[in-house]
Amino acid sequence: MDVQLKLLYENPVFRSYLFYTAILTIKMMFMSLLTIRQRVMNNSFVSEEDAMYLKGMVSRTNEHVERVRRGHRNDMENIYLFFVIAFAYIWTDPNPFLANFLFFAFTVARIVHTCVYTVVIMPQPIRGRAWLVGFFVTGYMAVRTLLHFC
Amino acid sequence: MDVQLKLLYENPVFRSYLFYTAILTIKMMFMSLLTIRQRVMNNSFVSEEDAMYLKGMVSRTNEHVERVRRGHRNDMENIYLFFVIAFAYIWTDPNPFLANFLFFAFTVARIVHTCVYTVVIMPQPIRGRAWLVGFFVTGYMAVRTLLHFC
Amino acid sequence: MDVQLKLLYENPVFRSYLFYTAILTIKMMFMSLLTIRQRVMNNSFVSEEDAMYLKGMVSRTNEHVERVRRGHRNDMENIYLFFVIAFAYIWTDPNPFLANFLFFAFTVARIVHTCVYTVVIMPQPIRGRAWLVGFFVTGYMAVRTLLHFC
Repeated sequence: MDVQLKLLYENPVFRSYLFYTAILTIKMMFMSLLTIRQRVMNNSFVSEEDAMYLKGMVSRTNEHVERVRRGHRNDMENIYLFFVIAFAYIWTDPNPFLANFLFFAFTVARIVHTCVYTVVIMPQPIRGRAWLVGFFVTGYMAVRTLLHFC
Repeated sequence: MDVQLKLLYENPVFRSYLFYTAILTIKMMFMSLLTIRQRVMNNSFVSEEDAMYLKGMVSRTNEHVERVRRGHRNDMENIYLFFVIAFAYIWTDPNPFLANFLFFAFTVARIVHTCVYTVVIMPQPIRGRAWLVGFFVTGYMAVRTLLHFC
Repeated sequence: MDVQLKLLYENPVFRSYLFYTAILTIKMMFMSLLTIRQRVMNNSFVSEEDAMYLKGMVSRTNEHVERVRRGHRNDMENIYLFFVIAFAYIWTDPNPFLANFLFFAFTVARIVHTCVYTVVIMPQPIRGRAWLVGFFVTGYMAVRTLLHFC
């Protein structure tokens, strides 16, 4: 075949991308469930109609709820960017082992980030370091893609 | 052709994905306009330079504005995830009717979510149920993708 | 080749998309660094374990920090939508010069938006206009995609 195709079932980098995409999607869906759990446990609902339906209180400053929401926002800042740049990175024809390792490292780092931020709160710098691993993976793929297409 | 291609104009699942992607993009763009409308109607601007230019007030706690912003954030938590996982789901070779139905159901559910949250405020559980439809569609596609590529 | 392929190294619109995707990814990564910089400079940390580790204070209302976070959120509302709809737009077979110009205009507008919002604060309407350029580019691509696939 004389054209450069990448999004193929036969390309191991792309298969790996789809696999980790599914894992990270499920991981982010859990953030919504964690938020609901904290809202119910702390009786802190965000809209009046929710408080009325669940016979609870309206509160927007409960620290347990806000902590999970910050974790969720941090995911949106970092994981969404990963989805996009990892997709672009596939076209730089990376070594499959390296690409797979980067996707794996990012995924583990983000799961650690969530755990130490919202499930079992741990002292810094562990959360900072988990964030940094994800940031470096994203940055590496972004620079590689930029150099490849400029 | 001996390779598995999916992102083709000829693939009805992919065409359906592109169609609902355009609908959902326009739906999310409306959230920005709804926010601006509430900021102007309630004279609640977020930055000093905005208040100065429009001869309004700085306020960050107006409930009408915050309600639209919560709806917009909920879209970012759910619709962006849909864009990514529905794309991955295309590679699981789904039944075109099922895939089209899932994309359709997700889109309708999210439009209902926005309407009852920010346009005509309705008592729960309607918003919760609209959110749940979207959550189940996303979850189904994520699990199918995960099983297919693990 | 008798099937419509678009995601090819040989397609200039797609190469342009990957290039601007890398630029915008790096631009959004800078928002995280700007937030950290403002948190350290203003001694305003968001979680207790961060304040403890860096011997700083917990504060969630510092205007310098919140300004950067609003800019970052605005990026998430607009740039993520661009990533998705520009990808879909590739299938409408656009003129390569037009597509390249739209991607370029969007990228410049968003960099201007960040600069006047968070680096050198400028009076309105410059930020509003930069936002509007991005909004129109996104809207144009969304409508073109919708008309093409409905």
